[in-house]
Amino acid sequence: MSQPIRVLVTGGTFDKEYDELSGRLFFRDTHLPEMLRRGRCRLDLAVEPLMMKDSLDMSEADRRAVVERCRGCPEARVLITHGTDTMADTARALHGAAPGKTIVLTGAMIPYAFGSSDGLFNLGSALSFAQVLPPGVYVAMNGRFFPGDRVRKDRSTGIFEELS
Amino acid sequence: MSQPIRVLVTGGTFDKEYDELSGRLFFRDTHLPEMLRRGRCRLDLAVEPLMMKDSLDMSEADRRAVVERCRGCPEARVLITHGTDTMADTARALHGAAPGKTIVLTGAMIPYAFGSSDGLFNLGSALSFAQVLPPGVYVAMNGRFFPGDRVRKDRSTGIFEELS
Amino acid sequence: MSQPIRVLVTGGTFDKEYDELSGRLFFRDTHLPEMLRRGRCRLDLAVEPLMMKDSLDMSEADRRAVVERCRGCPEARVLITHGTDTMADTARALHGAAPGKTIVLTGAMIPYAFGSSDGLFNLGSALSFAQVLPPGVYVAMNGRFFPGDRVRKDRSTGIFEELS
Amino acid sequence: MSQPIRVLVTGGTFDKEYDELSGRLFFRDTHLPEMLRRGRCRLDLAVEPLMMKDSLDMSEADRRAVVERCRGCPEARVLITHGTDTMADTARALHGAAPGKTIVLTGAMIPYAFGSSDGLFNLGSALSFAQVLPPGVYVAMNGRFFPGDRVRKDRSTGIFEELS
Repeated sequence: MSQPIRVLVTGGTFDKEYDELSGRLFFRDTHLPEMLRRGRCRLDLAVEPLMMKDSLDMSEADRRAVVERCRGCPEARVLITHGTDTMADTARALHGAAPGKTIVLTGAMIPYAFGSSDGLFNLGSALSFAQVLPPGVYVAMNGRFFPGDRVRKDRSTGIFEELS
Repeated sequence: MSQPIRVLVTGGTFDKEYDELSGRLFFRDTHLPEMLRRGRCRLDLAVEPLMMKDSLDMSEADRRAVVERCRGCPEARVLITHGTDTMADTARALHGAAPGKTIVLTGAMIPYAFGSSDGLFNLGSALSFAQVLPPGVYVAMNGRFFPGDRVRKDRSTGIFEELS
Repeated sequence: MSQPIRVLVTGGTFDKEYDELSGRLFFRDTHLPEMLRRGRCRLDLAVEPLMMKDSLDMSEADRRAVVERCRGCPEARVLITHGTDTMADTARALHGAAPGKTIVLTGAMIPYAFGSSDGLFNLGSALSFAQVLPPGVYVAMNGRFFPGDRVRKDRSTGIFEELS
Repeated sequence: MSQPIRVLVTGGTFDKEYDELSGRLFFRDTHLPEMLRRGRCRLDLAVEPLMMKDSLDMSEADRRAVVERCRGCPEARVLITHGTDTMADTARALHGAAPGKTIVLTGAMIPYAFGSSDGLFNLGSALSFAQVLPPGVYVAMNGRFFPGDRVRKDRSTGIFEELS
């Protein structure tokens, strides 16, 4: 039987939508449940929206809330959906904060609501890494996983890379 | 640096398209490269189309060709895209055939060319399992992984389950 | 104020879906209401499903039912969604059958449920022609309108053309 | 045979894309050719990009350029793709400017690049009205056509309505 995974939703490009009246991108509800249905996902998941924020707008208090929730939730495996811009910062804040737990952060470069999103690929990837990687903090992007304390997003290409 | 993965394409629902002249589903080229681009995948992959078949039409010779290629390819990690109907049969045929290699089979319930496909989720999942699972044969579907010799698809629900 | 339009649904590629258990295309409910919502359509429409059939499976009785409904409905303007293969046959059967009414047939080459469907384009086109063309029977496909008694679908290209 | 139609592209929501590096919406190339292919459109069209602008950013000079091009192009039928926010303003500027020509403006509430766009519906509708309406200036939105000098967009609902 698969082990339970806590899914903490923080917003990010993943969940952005287009507001047809203002012409701006905004957050409404998370698309996670719809994405999991589409992936015919049969894992034992507890989806918990923590906040709906562009990761550039996350404060230190927001980041602490994420850390606290990872520490406090009963599950030993945690997936965090997160904006890509400061994903590496949150990963670093989580480093060493929840010993014995496997924590995986993922996000998307294109909103799921757009036809061409990478979100479904990343979600499938991150949930899989969350099941089998040993305790630690990881970023799952570009089909790969990175150690949470040695990863950065290259802003000019949008690609994640491991710091040496 | 990520380890190289051989991706063997055999067809399946994954790659089916709609023929607007005949009104039937058919195979043309594999969608794998487009799906990998959309997932912004940065793994070291060698994509190799072996055949383009509905898995109900796979012969014993087809299945032997898959086994031979898994054995013969230089990579220690292999992903096979496959129709879901006989995926478990091919997994069983692979059991014990390529010792020391991690082989993951995946597919889709809905063609990728349809808006609502689960293919991108499954591809992200299978590529992730292929990187971290120990040597053996696995089926990656529904966000989970199953031992290749103890899995079946429930035809009435389309869900994969582990045999006890 | 816009005049009321009767929309008769007969099935066709428009409304086909993919059955993920059998791997076959089938009919369930019509997608017309969803398509009209997506087009933000504000016309005074009465949508009436008459049958859900591949137009190759339409019998003479089916065709008579369409003719009767066009004659009997209270609206002076009628849109018929129809499979493309025998759309020209039904158009011919309607010729002269409902004097004083503007009747437009349309369909799709690709099911709406597939990302790449032409259905939304054709629906917008047909509804517009239905509002402004004088009484008569027309086929609306490929952005054009054709007289219902002088049109055929070129089976080798899928394109509609006017008979001279 | 269908009469030639000039298609003037000015940008608008129709053509907006998501910039995955900045997280902002922007313009690159027009999606018109792809949309026409998807609609299997067989009209005699001359597509001409005039500018790529959010209609809130259109200047008086921009609007004059549109009027001049409508007047100067050889075709008697013109389609203009335009942002919805000031579409009614441009329609008014065109009023009486090109006697003998049928000019239709259309746009979209959701970018075509998003899965849920109304753009394809509106394009099919506007091209159809452009073929059959008598000389004059019209806005084609919500499946309807409006006289260009008596139309406004209700900003609170996004719906177009005729002024009495």
